[in-house]
Amino acid sequence: MPSSSNSDPARPSIDDIRRAADILNDVAVRTPLLESRRLSERLGYRLFLKAEPLQLTGSFKIRGAYNRIAAIAKNKRASGVVAYSSGNHGQGVAAAARLLGVPAVIVMPADAPTIKIESTRAWGAEIVLYDRRRESREAIAERLARERDATLVKPFDDCHVIAGQGTVGLEIAAQLAARGADADTLVCGTSGGGLLAGIAIAFASEAPAISLYAAEPAGFDDTARSLAAGQRMSNNGEATSFCDALLQPTPGEITFAINRSRLAGGVVVTDAEVADAMRVAFEYFKLVLEPSGAVGLAAALTGRVVAREGLVVVATGGNVDPALYAKVLTGWSG
Amino acid sequence: MPSSSNSDPARPSIDDIRRAADILNDVAVRTPLLESRRLSERLGYRLFLKAEPLQLTGSFKIRGAYNRIAAIAKNKRASGVVAYSSGNHGQGVAAAARLLGVPAVIVMPADAPTIKIESTRAWGAEIVLYDRRRESREAIAERLARERDATLVKPFDDCHVIAGQGTVGLEIAAQLAARGADADTLVCGTSGGGLLAGIAIAFASEAPAISLYAAEPAGFDDTARSLAAGQRMSNNGEATSFCDALLQPTPGEITFAINRSRLAGGVVVTDAEVADAMRVAFEYFKLVLEPSGAVGLAAALTGRVVAREGLVVVATGGNVDPALYAKVLTGWSG
Repeated sequence: MPSSSNSDPARPSIDDIRRAADILNDVAVRTPLLESRRLSERLGYRLFLKAEPLQLTGSFKIRGAYNRIAAIAKNKRASGVVAYSSGNHGQGVAAAARLLGVPAVIVMPADAPTIKIESTRAWGAEIVLYDRRRESREAIAERLARERDATLVKPFDDCHVIAGQGTVGLEIAAQLAARGADADTLVCGTSGGGLLAGIAIAFASEAPAISLYAAEPAGFDDTARSLAAGQRMSNNGEATSFCDALLQPTPGEITFAINRSRLAGGVVVTDAEVADAMRVAFEYFKLVLEPSGAVGLAAALTGRVVAREGLVVVATGGNVDPALYAKVLTGWSG
Repeated sequence: MPSSSNSDPARPSIDDIRRAADILNDVAVRTPLLESRRLSERLGYRLFLKAEPLQLTGSFKIRGAYNRIAAIAKNKRASGVVAYSSGNHGQGVAAAARLLGVPAVIVMPADAPTIKIESTRAWGAEIVLYDRRRESREAIAERLARERDATLVKPFDDCHVIAGQGTVGLEIAAQLAARGADADTLVCGTSGGGLLAGIAIAFASEAPAISLYAAEPAGFDDTARSLAAGQRMSNNGEATSFCDALLQPTPGEITFAINRSRLAGGVVVTDAEVADAMRVAFEYFKLVLEPSGAVGLAAALTGRVVAREGLVVVATGGNVDPALYAKVLTGWSG
């Protein structure tokens, strides 16, 4: 990490996150920290919801992607960027590249939902489709990057990406302070761990008294088990979940090195509990959450994460198919 | 209106709105002014959405209700307040009364949806049910107010209520200025006209170059026809619409006196167009809009209101039954 004030080059510093906040200043939305008084009364503590569905591209991913692409040397930008993602990271990279005037290629499975392919293409990205059963997306992306001299934008295991996601933590700390609110706990849905690692670095400086928890879908609790074991563990690959953004099989190297020293632990929620959290977000916050975006809220509603005074839940995204959302609203449980 | 700086006692002044903003400072949410870059590109101008579904109680109504109740003399507060409403005004009055420690009675039809009765009761209000076919809610509310020496909180035709709603306009003007955004037009769903009257007074001082339009459901275009005729007109009472918060038969006296001198005109949208706007808000903003809350957005999407540079749409509320919302998301058109 090219930061003069950073003692450890393998992890971003608080100054890297502050720089990312400056870089994102005119681009990313400073999303609101919502509170429902009725829900807080029901829970017995104040629950604050960081509303990243209201972020540009509908998830937090634009923060890290933009900060990463902005760090590419000017003379290398014309060669473009490459990313592999069927979801929020792909949209984040496509949008960030467009805003920075950099060509982008997004590698997506040929059977990805048309709506996701279209919303990525709407940001002007070139889409390369691959056959999920016979090809490796990583291999395709690396070959494209080599052929074009393009920069691969990783989804989480990258210091610039982590620093960008860490701006979520900076904003939460400032928003809590601005309203004089006490919070002692934060929970956030986790896949590769980039967002939580960024928040952990921000909070170590700005809100060190708040305990951090990872929340994961049942069967995809690699972070929880890795934290318990003290080393990176993998999922067995047999589980399924409708939390399609949280299916990463193992934590990142850089992210886990940060998270193992900062997190209080990990908790697990079922798809049925996530569906319930989506309905609660609809009723109390009028906010659309995708399944993966509701995992943190589910951890709070089930009581698996609790707070004394105040709990911050990071709602990470809202990119959900309307038909699936309608099914959840009418009682479907994943 | 007890305002020393107010030359016309029959309408609130900009100072009354500024005072309301102070009174609401620790209570109401300063709701975000959302923008979707993709939607703005599609429309050819910047569209800004004032997100009142994120307001306490899920609609703008808490603003006026709280400002009205806060103006009750201290020695009269214990006698309480009375309001008649099956919807957002009832919830706004119940919540405002609770926060100010004032007893509240809300008069609601016995056949109102259970969910609306329950969410009003959840704020601690006493609920008085009446038979819609045989009783007058106004008569019941006035009798209750007389018997208890309580204060009737009208839904729109009251200077304190208008001043409270006007804080929406103050916030929009400040939010546009803070991001250096040019807007030339605003459109807002309208029933009795209190919100638009408040915004009109705020904009006359803070954003005088912006033209204001009322949007109404087809068959309930009393404001549009009143503006065209130069006098208050009524709906014929035969139409139906799923915009259940906008079925008021005629503009208010105070509100129309303000709106006739300030508004550029009124436009009409169908239920099918409103349903489409609800789906657009889901896709582009991840925000739940109730039908009545989507009328302004529908006016923009149909091109019935257009802008040169920037259009502000006030999304007034998000209190919609999940089953109805699911039907709309899967293609139902009202």
